[in-house]
Amino acid sequence: MSNPPAPRGASRERMLETAIDLMRGFGLSGAGINDLVRESGAPKGSVYHFFPGGKLQIAEEALAAYGPRVRELIVEALAGAEAPPEKVRTLFRAFARRLRSADFSRSCMVGTVGLDLDDSLEPLRQRLASTLDGWADAIAAAFDLGSTRRTRAFAGFVLTAIEGAYVRARVERSSTPFTEAGEWLATLLE
Amino acid sequence: MSNPPAPRGASRERMLETAIDLMRGFGLSGAGINDLVRESGAPKGSVYHFFPGGKLQIAEEALAAYGPRVRELIVEALAGAEAPPEKVRTLFRAFARRLRSADFSRSCMVGTVGLDLDDSLEPLRQRLASTLDGWADAIAAAFDLGSTRRTRAFAGFVLTAIEGAYVRARVERSSTPFTEAGEWLATLLE
Repeated sequence: MSNPPAPRGASRERMLETAIDLMRGFGLSGAGINDLVRESGAPKGSVYHFFPGGKLQIAEEALAAYGPRVRELIVEALAGAEAPPEKVRTLFRAFARRLRSADFSRSCMVGTVGLDLDDSLEPLRQRLASTLDGWADAIAAAFDLGSTRRTRAFAGFVLTAIEGAYVRARVERSSTPFTEAGEWLATLLE
Repeated sequence: MSNPPAPRGASRERMLETAIDLMRGFGLSGAGINDLVRESGAPKGSVYHFFPGGKLQIAEEALAAYGPRVRELIVEALAGAEAPPEKVRTLFRAFARRLRSADFSRSCMVGTVGLDLDDSLEPLRQRLASTLDGWADAIAAAFDLGSTRRTRAFAGFVLTAIEGAYVRARVERSSTPFTEAGEWLATLLE
């Protein structure tokens, strides 16, 4: 420990935050080492120093930091209303706000990275799947559609709608796909 | 016309098909000129010869070829059943088959490219939005939810579900997100 730990940790953390931001914008193929160096202002050598496993390690650590944040957003939004239809509307309004505040240029890292997957990224794919699974748990905990199986399937469909709304919202530069999805899902609960 | 047109046209078309394939796999950032040259087997100079506008021109032409194919798939699938709930199930089964036959490694070009958009790609964004719009028209034409507005919003939600199911399906390596989405959407029509 000859170096003071604070700046090292801060610089490592800044790189991870830059990675999350780039991946939410452009996926894995848009968050190469060179992009990361340019956007974080870190020297190139320090990327390999902090992340000897390179891009895959960065993506896995970025996802490990990102997943719980979104889960928290989900839990908080769902707690913001009492009636199930209003819970789901509130959730989609929260995502719509999130996207508008990012000026439609950042979306869900699971979506952006998920649509860049190839066979060489199997470990990352599995972590993306676990992340979705954790979010589905958080959604399912807030609803009761009569059976665990049906409630869980509904939670999965909510995630499908969130990921799809992100695609449409970025393409259409509009948060309407979120508010409309919230309405249709609320109808299913009414 | 000193060169015979057939090989030139064939080579241009092969590059476009390669571009569609790469973009469906990895988005815009995964379909660079070098990837295109490597995968299509074309000499690098010929890419700029055929597409002087570079990557953006290639993406726009690829989308112009891709959009009508998916629209045709949508129209055919929706014509494959009589009752509205069964129409929507049939549509999602068609997308599920399409994804399985691509071994979960290719999805919708609007999704993969849409999640790579930045401000410099505004003309491409508008074309992606028009493409979605055309697909929504095709879906809306097959349903009647009481008013044009509501029918159109439903068609939009069907597209949201397709794009989101592609994300989940690639991440989970499963076509279940499609069949389940089809079931929930059928419920909305029942």
